[in-house]
Amino acid sequence: MATAEAMGRVVAEDIVAPGDLPFFPRSTMDGYAVRAEDTYGASEGLPAYLRVVGEVRMGSPADIVVGPGEAVLIHTGGMLPGNADAVVMVENTREVDSSTIEVVRPAARGENVLQVGEEVRKGDLLLPAGSIVRAQEIGGLLSQGITEITVLQRVKVGLISTGDELVPPEEVPQPGQVRNTNAYTLAALAFKAGAIPLRLGIMRDDREALVQAARDGLRQADIVVISAGSSASARDMTADVIRSLGEPGVLVHGVALRPGKPTILGVVNGKPIFGLPGNPSSAMVTFELFVTPCIYRLSGCRQPLRRFVKARLTRNIASAAGREDYVPVKLHEQDGEMLAEPVFGKSNLLSNMMRADGMAQVPLDRNGLAEGESALVIPF
Amino acid sequence: MATAEAMGRVVAEDIVAPGDLPFFPRSTMDGYAVRAEDTYGASEGLPAYLRVVGEVRMGSPADIVVGPGEAVLIHTGGMLPGNADAVVMVENTREVDSSTIEVVRPAARGENVLQVGEEVRKGDLLLPAGSIVRAQEIGGLLSQGITEITVLQRVKVGLISTGDELVPPEEVPQPGQVRNTNAYTLAALAFKAGAIPLRLGIMRDDREALVQAARDGLRQADIVVISAGSSASARDMTADVIRSLGEPGVLVHGVALRPGKPTILGVVNGKPIFGLPGNPSSAMVTFELFVTPCIYRLSGCRQPLRRFVKARLTRNIASAAGREDYVPVKLHEQDGEMLAEPVFGKSNLLSNMMRADGMAQVPLDRNGLAEGESALVIPF
Repeated sequence: MATAEAMGRVVAEDIVAPGDLPFFPRSTMDGYAVRAEDTYGASEGLPAYLRVVGEVRMGSPADIVVGPGEAVLIHTGGMLPGNADAVVMVENTREVDSSTIEVVRPAARGENVLQVGEEVRKGDLLLPAGSIVRAQEIGGLLSQGITEITVLQRVKVGLISTGDELVPPEEVPQPGQVRNTNAYTLAALAFKAGAIPLRLGIMRDDREALVQAARDGLRQADIVVISAGSSASARDMTADVIRSLGEPGVLVHGVALRPGKPTILGVVNGKPIFGLPGNPSSAMVTFELFVTPCIYRLSGCRQPLRRFVKARLTRNIASAAGREDYVPVKLHEQDGEMLAEPVFGKSNLLSNMMRADGMAQVPLDRNGLAEGESALVIPF
Repeated sequence: MATAEAMGRVVAEDIVAPGDLPFFPRSTMDGYAVRAEDTYGASEGLPAYLRVVGEVRMGSPADIVVGPGEAVLIHTGGMLPGNADAVVMVENTREVDSSTIEVVRPAARGENVLQVGEEVRKGDLLLPAGSIVRAQEIGGLLSQGITEITVLQRVKVGLISTGDELVPPEEVPQPGQVRNTNAYTLAALAFKAGAIPLRLGIMRDDREALVQAARDGLRQADIVVISAGSSASARDMTADVIRSLGEPGVLVHGVALRPGKPTILGVVNGKPIFGLPGNPSSAMVTFELFVTPCIYRLSGCRQPLRRFVKARLTRNIASAAGREDYVPVKLHEQDGEMLAEPVFGKSNLLSNMMRADGMAQVPLDRNGLAEGESALVIPF
């Protein structure tokens, strides 16, 4: 694809520099190109006098040669003329007349010059396979004329919602029904992680229909996520369905996590398949904790992703040892420090997450965290 | 636009809840809907016996009433039946026979029940104007049936490159020429900040052409960025052009910053216009420091954006007091702490930024930062 459009994509193969950068010696300052030896010993009291014999125009080859006792006007980025081996900054010169300057400080050989290949040498590994393309990669590749690159395909995440109580968001729910939101929140999280979400619809709590939908999902997508109906029987059915799809099936059923206890982690014929709780905020938390790392891994990128923010709690958070808790927090910055303020309210409501910037982690082995303690926060 | 597609956009107007959520009382647990008073005093030793008179099916209205001494099987998310005012968790019950359960712990009124409007009340401010739409906002809006929302237009950033030395990336540069990369790196940074970048081409160092291009830019875009030719005269011309375009023109010419000293900040007829240095990494740093905050401000979003990461330096960084320095660093995580390792190499090369995760700040009043000190890092 076009390098210029590849922001955020993962490069598929090692990219090697096709040439030296720069491919001509460049000045890094505005000043005069000189032979360094002509400036040796120069000082305010005893300046070196040089004859200005021309100017290097920007964008033009330096078709001029600097002889002994001579200087050539040059600009930042200009090509160093022949026989010059240093640039004297304009600040270290004084104009005597239209064709003579005084140099008041000596320049060392190579001073203020970017040599051929000094930034990148031909054959250097410019970008290893698996790199994520950022602004600087786009610039670095284009500076070498690499206008097209091969990137890895984006990971496809198939999203199935189950539950007899679910109706699509555009329908008006009847008593007992709720609108399906998990397919949309999880699609947004998948998109944020660089994946392509595929919304595969709402399934009734019907075993055969769910098996069929999951099979279709495994065909179309690299990862399948079933956000289970909220009842215990619907969750059990999800596990049963995953088991029936192929080997090895369910790997983990239930995790020491709140929210997210009934999470199911599985693999079917090499593809990860997840059963996430139906509760909207539980589904989001478990997606971030289990599915997002899986997206990163399958997308082939090398860089570790820093997903947690560290922040100091402004209040105590209660918890119970033996499970990892996630609590919605608002983040503030104060004197260069990040503060996390717990958002109170009945647990596991999406509305709390709307008032929060992220979820703070209370580790497995803790009964809670005290005001003033540092917590890891997953931004949402 | 469709709420489901609005990830990252800014809502244009306050969004008020059209109804109560939930609009029927829901169980938050698997268990039995009961009249709380029937369970008062129940214990392992002296359980309360209740008659199971039915089941609330998921997605169905609870067309059953709980009489004294009765219980109704209910699932998480199920609708509370008439006259019930609490749910006893299944873990606190024992089945005696097919129609009788023992309750071994009392339930308080309202326990394990999400009341009508308890999550969101009709008329509540669901989302204030200026909010950025995240996954939870998409879910929260869709749960209320709000499938379409009005979002603010994305900010347009016009990018002009100047310099007689520049050729487009797809051309082979001749001696003295370099490929234009700033238009692409800055476009990527603008995109990352949620703006629409408009690449307006390469201008020669010609005053009239640049005036014309800048005027066109101000017509098409909300912000204009001129990445100046690298020579001093090209930079001076940029300032001169900005002055000539309208009032107030140049506000700041030169900042105590490295890289980025020759930065120009201006406003013309209410639109911000920037003259950034031509050096690729200087252009990127100054874009992030000056243009990105301006994009956020103009995009109308309310949330403050946390752009800095705090990390502890693994080595000394030298600097000079009286200017703010930015030095490329690699970030590592170690024992839950973020470490910043300076990337060495000739300063201001894009290749250093390719090896870095961000730029660490050395504050204005410091001569440098010592190993072990905390630094603020802008991720790139």
